[in-house]
Amino acid sequence: MAPSLRETLRAPAAPVRLREIDPRSTPLVPGEKEHTREVAVAEGRRLAELQERLYAEGVTGGRRRVLLVLQGMDTSGKGGVVRHVVGAVQPQGVAVTGFGRPTPEELRHGFLWRVRRAVPWPGMLGVFDRSHYEDVLAGRVRQLAPPPVVERRYREIVRFEQHLVDDGVTLVKVLLHISPWEQKQRLLARLDDSAKRWKFDPSDLDDRALWPDYQRAYETVLERTSTDAAPWYVVPADRKWYRNWAVGRLLLETLTDLDPRLPEPSYDVAEQRDRLIEEHPLSD
Amino acid sequence: MAPSLRETLRAPAAPVRLREIDPRSTPLVPGEKEHTREVAVAEGRRLAELQERLYAEGVTGGRRRVLLVLQGMDTSGKGGVVRHVVGAVQPQGVAVTGFGRPTPEELRHGFLWRVRRAVPWPGMLGVFDRSHYEDVLAGRVRQLAPPPVVERRYREIVRFEQHLVDDGVTLVKVLLHISPWEQKQRLLARLDDSAKRWKFDPSDLDDRALWPDYQRAYETVLERTSTDAAPWYVVPADRKWYRNWAVGRLLLETLTDLDPRLPEPSYDVAEQRDRLIEEHPLSD
Repeated sequence: MAPSLRETLRAPAAPVRLREIDPRSTPLVPGEKEHTREVAVAEGRRLAELQERLYAEGVTGGRRRVLLVLQGMDTSGKGGVVRHVVGAVQPQGVAVTGFGRPTPEELRHGFLWRVRRAVPWPGMLGVFDRSHYEDVLAGRVRQLAPPPVVERRYREIVRFEQHLVDDGVTLVKVLLHISPWEQKQRLLARLDDSAKRWKFDPSDLDDRALWPDYQRAYETVLERTSTDAAPWYVVPADRKWYRNWAVGRLLLETLTDLDPRLPEPSYDVAEQRDRLIEEHPLSD
Repeated sequence: MAPSLRETLRAPAAPVRLREIDPRSTPLVPGEKEHTREVAVAEGRRLAELQERLYAEGVTGGRRRVLLVLQGMDTSGKGGVVRHVVGAVQPQGVAVTGFGRPTPEELRHGFLWRVRRAVPWPGMLGVFDRSHYEDVLAGRVRQLAPPPVVERRYREIVRFEQHLVDDGVTLVKVLLHISPWEQKQRLLARLDDSAKRWKFDPSDLDDRALWPDYQRAYETVLERTSTDAAPWYVVPADRKWYRNWAVGRLLLETLTDLDPRLPEPSYDVAEQRDRLIEEHPLSD
C-alpha cells in the first residue's frame, strides 16, 4: 500500500533537525504544478463532502471535530492555506481563529485561556492561524516569559491536547517550513505591492533576524509536543502549490480515517411524508 | 440614480403585511436565472475584495465589522446563503454562528448572553444563522416564554443592536420570505434524499402547522425592530437564484458604503526595503 502523506510528513523523532528537511522538496506530490493544482481542487471537493458529514454528525449529537493548527514563520503561507484549502469547505462547518499578540485581557489569564475558548464545536473544522505554540516560540525566542515558565508550558500543552483528543478532537498540527531565501522574496513582494503592504510589520524583520533561534525553538516544539495523540507534520512550503495540496491532503486523509456517516433519521420517513402530504390547509 | 436593493427590500413601515410581498417576486433582478447567477459570481468577487479591506482595517486597529442576521422558516435557505454568498469571501474574514435550541448552560443566562459572545470581531463579516430573534419568534409562537417577557425582549433587542452599531457593527438583517407551497416541496425533497434526511426534524412540521402564527410573529418583529440603525430586509426566497443574488447584493451595497480602505503603512517602506536587502547573512 502506498504510504500516506501523514506518515511521510510526520515530524521525525528527536533530535529534530529542520535544516535536513528541504523546504523546496515535494514528498508524494501527485505530479507537476498544474496537475497538482487540479488534484488539489478535486480533493478539496471530497474534503468538503466529508466535512459536511462530520457537521451532520455534530448536529445530531456527535462529539467529533477536527482542529488544524497552522504554525510557521511570517509569509510561510498560513493565510494562503486558509484561503485555498479551508476555503473549499462550507463556511458553516468552519471556524478560523487567528491568534495575534495577546490583548491586555488575555494577558491576565493563563496562556491557554484564549485557546480553550476557540476550540471548535462538535462537527466543525477548526483552524488556528498561529496558536498556543506562539507562547513557546515567540515566548522563548523573544523572552516574553522566563525560561522555567516556557519549560512548563510544553507539558501543559501536551496535557491540554490529550484532553482535547479525549473529548473528540482530532488535531492536525502543521509546521509550514520555508527557507529564509523564500521568505526574503515574499517580504519584498509585500513591500512592493501596495495592496499587500498592510500585511507587513517591521517586527517581521526583527523575527527574521532571529531565524536560527526560531528554528531551534520549532525543533524543541516538535521534539516535546509531537505525540501519537496529537502529531506534528512538517510541510515543505517554499512552493505554494505543493503546500496547498499537502495540507489539504493531510486533512483529507484525516477525515477519511474518521469516516463520518450521515446519521440515520430518528423518525419514520414514510410517516412524516404522509403527514406532510395529508396536512390540513394552512389558514393565513 | 437607480434605487438600491437595500431601499427596495427594506421592510415596509408598520403595519407590515407579509402576505402582500410575493415570495416568487424578483425585485431589481439583473436578468434571467443564468445571467443573474453570473452577476452573483462577479459581485461575490467584489464583495470578497471589499471584505479583505475591512479585514485589513480590523487588523490595524479599526472597529468596523458587518453582521448578517439570517432568519426565515425552515428550508427558506439560510444554509444556502451561507454556502453560496458567504462562501465567496475568504474564510479568515468570516465567522458563522448557528443558533439552535439553547443548551442548558445558555438557558441559565439571559437570551442575549450567547449572542453577545458571538458578535463578530472588528474587520469580520459575522453571520448569524438564526439569532436572538428566535426568542421573539419561536419564543412567542411556541410559548417558550410568558408574553410579558417576550414583550420586553423587543425593546432589549433594539437597545442591544443600537449598542452594537455604536461599537462599529453594521447590521444587515434579512428575512428569507418563502411560501408554504415552496416549503412543502423542499421538505418533501429533504425526506426523499437520503443525503438530506438528517436536516429534517419532525418538529419542522409542528412549526409548519403554526405557519400563520409565525408570519404574524415575523410581522411584529419587522414592526418593532426595524430601525434606521439596524433595518430589516425582506428577501423573496422562493427562487434560490434570486435569493442568493439579492443577499449578496445587500452585502455588496453595505460594504461599498462602508468603503474600507487598505491602511497606509505606519512604517517607511523604502527604509524597511533597505533593511531587508542589506541584512547580514543569517547564520544557522
